[in-house]
Amino acid sequence: MAIRLDANQADFEARFQDLLSMKREVSEDVDAIVRDIIDQVKHHGDEALFELTQKFDRFDAREKGLRISQQEIDAAVASIDPDVMAALELARDRIKSHHQRQLPKDDIYEDALGVQLGSRWTAIEAVGLYVPGGLAAYPSSVLMNAVPAKVAGVERLVMVVPTPDGVLNPLVLAAAKLAGVDEIYRIGGAQAVAALAYGTDTIDPVYKIVGPGNAFVAAAKRQVFGLVGIDMIAGPSEVLVIADKENDPDWIAVDLMAQAEHDTAAQSILISDDADFATAVEEAVERQLKTLPKADIAGASWRDYGAVITVADWETGMALSNRVAPEHLELAVANAEEMVEKVRNAGAIFVGRFTPEAVGDYVGGSNHVLPTARSARFSSGLGTLDFVKRSSILRCQPDNLREIGPAAVTLARQEGLEAHARSVATRLNM
Amino acid sequence: MAIRLDANQADFEARFQDLLSMKREVSEDVDAIVRDIIDQVKHHGDEALFELTQKFDRFDAREKGLRISQQEIDAAVASIDPDVMAALELARDRIKSHHQRQLPKDDIYEDALGVQLGSRWTAIEAVGLYVPGGLAAYPSSVLMNAVPAKVAGVERLVMVVPTPDGVLNPLVLAAAKLAGVDEIYRIGGAQAVAALAYGTDTIDPVYKIVGPGNAFVAAAKRQVFGLVGIDMIAGPSEVLVIADKENDPDWIAVDLMAQAEHDTAAQSILISDDADFATAVEEAVERQLKTLPKADIAGASWRDYGAVITVADWETGMALSNRVAPEHLELAVANAEEMVEKVRNAGAIFVGRFTPEAVGDYVGGSNHVLPTARSARFSSGLGTLDFVKRSSILRCQPDNLREIGPAAVTLARQEGLEAHARSVATRLNM
Repeated sequence: MAIRLDANQADFEARFQDLLSMKREVSEDVDAIVRDIIDQVKHHGDEALFELTQKFDRFDAREKGLRISQQEIDAAVASIDPDVMAALELARDRIKSHHQRQLPKDDIYEDALGVQLGSRWTAIEAVGLYVPGGLAAYPSSVLMNAVPAKVAGVERLVMVVPTPDGVLNPLVLAAAKLAGVDEIYRIGGAQAVAALAYGTDTIDPVYKIVGPGNAFVAAAKRQVFGLVGIDMIAGPSEVLVIADKENDPDWIAVDLMAQAEHDTAAQSILISDDADFATAVEEAVERQLKTLPKADIAGASWRDYGAVITVADWETGMALSNRVAPEHLELAVANAEEMVEKVRNAGAIFVGRFTPEAVGDYVGGSNHVLPTARSARFSSGLGTLDFVKRSSILRCQPDNLREIGPAAVTLARQEGLEAHARSVATRLNM
Repeated sequence: MAIRLDANQADFEARFQDLLSMKREVSEDVDAIVRDIIDQVKHHGDEALFELTQKFDRFDAREKGLRISQQEIDAAVASIDPDVMAALELARDRIKSHHQRQLPKDDIYEDALGVQLGSRWTAIEAVGLYVPGGLAAYPSSVLMNAVPAKVAGVERLVMVVPTPDGVLNPLVLAAAKLAGVDEIYRIGGAQAVAALAYGTDTIDPVYKIVGPGNAFVAAAKRQVFGLVGIDMIAGPSEVLVIADKENDPDWIAVDLMAQAEHDTAAQSILISDDADFATAVEEAVERQLKTLPKADIAGASWRDYGAVITVADWETGMALSNRVAPEHLELAVANAEEMVEKVRNAGAIFVGRFTPEAVGDYVGGSNHVLPTARSARFSSGLGTLDFVKRSSILRCQPDNLREIGPAAVTLARQEGLEAHARSVATRLNM
């Protein structure tokens, strides 16, 4: 059973604070191991990759080579059920259309004085995409990371994916092919991150690395950050559902379980203005846990981190939601559209009773890589902007410099930077 | 003397690689000290701030209180020369106009199927701005960080600035006032970063921390990252000037020195297609070093990290520049406008002979907080986007869910996520 809170209880604030500050993640200290692996790849390149892949993934990558060949990819794709391919294609197309709208436009203009200013956007030339092996090998995640990169114009999108015992995951390869990934290597772990950052004889280095991974991958990304860019380090997933009593309790319960089945550290929170409805949802959860294949995981998540909060009104409910800053926010209420306007902090908002979060995980079109652990207070989900960068442009004509230059000279001298002052003054014969 | 390279030399590629991989920064290991300071502030709040400020800044902040009062700010501002105030105001106004154009627009739309999708932007509610004391206390940096935050709509912009021996820096306070900073505290170092991240009785916590600082501040920002957002950690500054022989060698030399005077670890690079002109610039640098107040710093930077590269044509020159990915790029050439189109990696581009980089440091309007150490290959300068975040919006009507939902069910089952599948299927009576 999840904890049950009522915003009108005397001790509510303290208990809500406890909920907010709950630590759901055990951080493993793998920094030293990872530092050693990165050093090996940095100094021994491909040789280190062969050895580490033998050690961790139990096969000799020398046999087929580090790179997964086009034939292997084509064969994998051919093995996939046409229905599944069609579903992946629908997802790919919808993600592509949505992310095309996120492409920023250059803005070059002259201001009132005639100074030319501008922002010019260019794609990052080469990006690496880490895809986990094993349980978390989700083709949907490949699409969510790779499609925006290609939409942004990344020329060289390089995927790494561990293939334990040398076994390929056809769905992951199919998603990569559909998304337009340019190169795929059968390596994983910190060694794959190191190869992307430093390059080897076989693998050219990239400038940014994105994608989820285990503690070793996360630590490796942190360690190479600076040399290359990285995306956010994702924590366990969470959903907050705001629901009135007009909902079917079973619908809301299964939405809470969809989050909970990801991970025992996932968190599902219900906020409702009706105590009886909230109780009905709790009961529905217990019923559903009897038939869900991942009931162990979902049940543990619900028991340890789940919460059901009743509120007197939606103003209170939304204020609490904004303090949680959930990764996913479902608004299953009559006035859902209006309520969107009051959302201040949320990674993604799912509006109305017919938009379960799971549709957004796959085929909605928006991205499912979203800020976790309350970071929606200060960051955004993955999107096209993560694969481009902006150069500012400034051009002064001589008369512009005469107009604004003296102020620069004044400020430079105040800051004690005489060469700065002179670089303007000399052009003005000052 | 800077090193001199010619792109036609046989060993050029190796020597250019050496230039690219030069380490200019000594990373101090202050993590343990910083962890202890953060712990003190986390557990003892204001008391810890008083003690640490007494220890590091040598005054008792209990006397006037941690917060710098409006009277203190007004008095400081009143002491400033009207010319300097006017220069700061011009800078503020120009930075504001430029950054207003960077405000992203919401994009809410219905796609061909009738699914409502969208991106909705909101400002980060509370942001902390670190301003260094001592040498690097630049009022221009206060404007460059604070103005975009206010343009973005940040409601609570909190500045921290150490005041060694209790002495205020009037210029920094004036810049803060002009930029609309809401609260200013007389604290610095890792303790100030900790106070912003965790909050104390006096200081409410913020959600993101920006601004430059020394090794302790940088380490503290890294340690609180995750709990709050942070901006990039800036390294030593650099400029790359592409100049033809039509330039006055003195103009180009002083631009190189303007970068070099920042820091002995700064880097100034000249690329020219004319060897005699390049030599004339080198000679001009030597002359100028005789009269510059910061000749010690600028001379050391030029000697240790400066470079003069001659090329046969601009195509080669631009290819080298894109590999360097300079923080600042000056195009002092006849066809500067055309050349902008070929720039792939640069934080800011200064176009034409009358746009010295220094004008952009103060009054151009674009931001001077820019990606250093070749990170322009994957990141952008500071801007309005750094103070907002995006929530994605998805709304399916029942018939939309009927159309795209089955593909979500298919993919969820492929990924072994049955509750995901059911949360869609149950709404479709599947």
